[in-house]
Amino acid sequence: MQSELNTRLCDAVDAAFDRQVAFLSDLTAHPSTRGNEQSAQAFMARELADRKYELDQWQIDVAEIQHLPGFSPVLGPYEDAVNVVGTHRSKTGTGRSLILNGHIDVVPAGPLDMWDTPPFEPRVEDGWLYGRGGGDMKAGLASNLFALDALTACGLAPAADVFFQSVVEEECTGNGALACLARGYTADAALIPEPFSEHLVAAQLGVLWFQVHLKGLPTHVAYAGSGANAIEAAVPLITALHEMEHRWNAAENRTRDYAHMEHALNLNVGKIEGGDWTSSVPAWCVFDVRMGLFPGQSIETAKAEIEQVILDAARQNDFLRNALPEIVYHGFHAEGYALSQDSSAMATSAISALESAHRSATGEDLVREAITATTDARFFGLYADTPALVYGPRAEAIHGFNERVELESMRRVTKATAMFIADWCGVEKL
Amino acid sequence: MQSELNTRLCDAVDAAFDRQVAFLSDLTAHPSTRGNEQSAQAFMARELADRKYELDQWQIDVAEIQHLPGFSPVLGPYEDAVNVVGTHRSKTGTGRSLILNGHIDVVPAGPLDMWDTPPFEPRVEDGWLYGRGGGDMKAGLASNLFALDALTACGLAPAADVFFQSVVEEECTGNGALACLARGYTADAALIPEPFSEHLVAAQLGVLWFQVHLKGLPTHVAYAGSGANAIEAAVPLITALHEMEHRWNAAENRTRDYAHMEHALNLNVGKIEGGDWTSSVPAWCVFDVRMGLFPGQSIETAKAEIEQVILDAARQNDFLRNALPEIVYHGFHAEGYALSQDSSAMATSAISALESAHRSATGEDLVREAITATTDARFFGLYADTPALVYGPRAEAIHGFNERVELESMRRVTKATAMFIADWCGVEKL
Repeated sequence: MQSELNTRLCDAVDAAFDRQVAFLSDLTAHPSTRGNEQSAQAFMARELADRKYELDQWQIDVAEIQHLPGFSPVLGPYEDAVNVVGTHRSKTGTGRSLILNGHIDVVPAGPLDMWDTPPFEPRVEDGWLYGRGGGDMKAGLASNLFALDALTACGLAPAADVFFQSVVEEECTGNGALACLARGYTADAALIPEPFSEHLVAAQLGVLWFQVHLKGLPTHVAYAGSGANAIEAAVPLITALHEMEHRWNAAENRTRDYAHMEHALNLNVGKIEGGDWTSSVPAWCVFDVRMGLFPGQSIETAKAEIEQVILDAARQNDFLRNALPEIVYHGFHAEGYALSQDSSAMATSAISALESAHRSATGEDLVREAITATTDARFFGLYADTPALVYGPRAEAIHGFNERVELESMRRVTKATAMFIADWCGVEKL
Repeated sequence: MQSELNTRLCDAVDAAFDRQVAFLSDLTAHPSTRGNEQSAQAFMARELADRKYELDQWQIDVAEIQHLPGFSPVLGPYEDAVNVVGTHRSKTGTGRSLILNGHIDVVPAGPLDMWDTPPFEPRVEDGWLYGRGGGDMKAGLASNLFALDALTACGLAPAADVFFQSVVEEECTGNGALACLARGYTADAALIPEPFSEHLVAAQLGVLWFQVHLKGLPTHVAYAGSGANAIEAAVPLITALHEMEHRWNAAENRTRDYAHMEHALNLNVGKIEGGDWTSSVPAWCVFDVRMGLFPGQSIETAKAEIEQVILDAARQNDFLRNALPEIVYHGFHAEGYALSQDSSAMATSAISALESAHRSATGEDLVREAITATTDARFFGLYADTPALVYGPRAEAIHGFNERVELESMRRVTKATAMFIADWCGVEKL
């Protein structure tokens, strides 16, 4: 029986797949970098409304989430940060409820001349769709939506409530997913099709963002000896941070999921800016850092050590000793999360359902992987006692140039997702 | 006779000094950073027109100067770059002609919070005027103008043509002074009251500006090992440039004027910018460098060595080896210049006249100094066979915060300038 339903669901995914690729292309054409997600969210809202899902769109209110665990500090208000949720209400309510989550925000494209074709003019070539955000993670949003469509095409609906979430702020804070939780959206499990090559994410790292502000003593460069170059003063601080990075990666600090990885925790100097005039000793420099944390590692302890490392290095410098750097946090305060540590019946059952669906879609066993990034899964797993399955298509060069997602992989994930929904939620007649 | 005239000139400077300070304050209030000199130049033009000087205002035309020796490469057109020259035409023409030169452009103020009071709201305190550009070099422009006023107040005028120049672009290229030359302004000597503590500048360095563009291989930081961080790739290049700086400063490379200085040539990393997103391995980084050269050091040879140093260092880096940095020049291509090497009768005579005037104004001998910066003097000295005397008031923190100029020093320089004009040009009745 299940097998026959699966066949019908897979056929339905195939039948709609050209439309799904067109949908993905349309969605990827929206340049939904942070602060610019509005048109993409409006597009998602229309698609959900057309399908008769109950629509909820709201602007994130910092006051409603800033006291919650998992909140990450932000600069300024969230006037441009709108979440979209479409709800399917089951008539029978006999199954287990589900959140299908995906993020709409994409990271900046970077210098356009490094792309073979414009990042927000998606194109399909040799089975891949190219474009910023195509992989991370608009193919996942497409997969969630068209998996539900496959049930509809079979005259069926999930026999439990399903919440389709299109959230902002995944790439910098996760406050979009947190705002969904705060608004009351909970379920028995969550599925997040982030692009990890059809593997199940067994564990994810924590991530901290911080900014280091340096002030130098500016003078005309003719008297460079009497000034302090704020740009060059950054170098020993960065060196000290890399030494900390190596200590944190030491074998004795690794959790089980990461025991085999020599260097899971990456420290990245992602941005820098300093100085105003080539012939003036620069008076200021700011650099932005991302650092990974193992699951279980405390954010507050990590922050304290980072601050200590920076200040100790600054005290070695004649000038910085008297003008200590300022460390500012905005962006990720993300704890690590390991689904592998969740031994609850709900988690075991959800993983088992996904394993079956994956095997049906691919003919292969589901591989589990510990990833070196974070995802919104942590909110469900750590703060809502909900197993969060991160499982999505194969993509390449996410955050890079010529980002691309494999379309056949998206097809398999869509099929697996449709079968997972049918299994997890059960089905009812439309 | 000279002594009596000198007394009258000094008295006239004293009588007008409050107005001169008010003029300096008004001029310093114009935020005439590069591209924003218009209101300050309009103010200068009005002051010159009020005094009945023959006025010449024109926009620099790159096509007219780019083939000339001393030209520095620039980005984009010069739509906003206007020079102002006021000419006094002598009735008798019996004396030696003179250019009184000063630059109107000032360097950026930098972070406002590092100033005790706003940089473009000048204030006088304890005998100093504070404000960006007050010292470098609006006090010099005031000194030139009020020195001429002192002659007028005595019922006299210079007995030779005098060209009062207020030029742009001194702080980045010198193309403003070059455009004056190209327009035909020449004279028997030039005086530039740059703020060097009432010393005569015996020699000045050359200056080269260059930009280094790095490209990295961006990836999600989760895969940092497979990317190349363009920001961190800058560090070994900067280190290699500092090694070159130390080689260039070696005793055997110094010219006579700099033989006593351990470190006359400063290499300054003045600006840096790179990366777009904290969690992306940065794909690009650009840093701006200023390097000093000794007089006589060839610009082309210096550029070739700089390029070699950067590329050699880049070839040590696994990634940069295959994506070599790009070196871009815009800004100073300034050769060094040593008045001390000018043994012509005109130079000897001009220096002697300034020595007398300085002694009359201050009671002290004129000190000669080799400076570690450049000035527009090079255009007169190197490309127009005109001795250029750089001699101006005492200022502090030029290019820094709380830049200030000593008002009594400006008074002495104004007196010395008035007496120098009377001596050099001779005088005629108004």
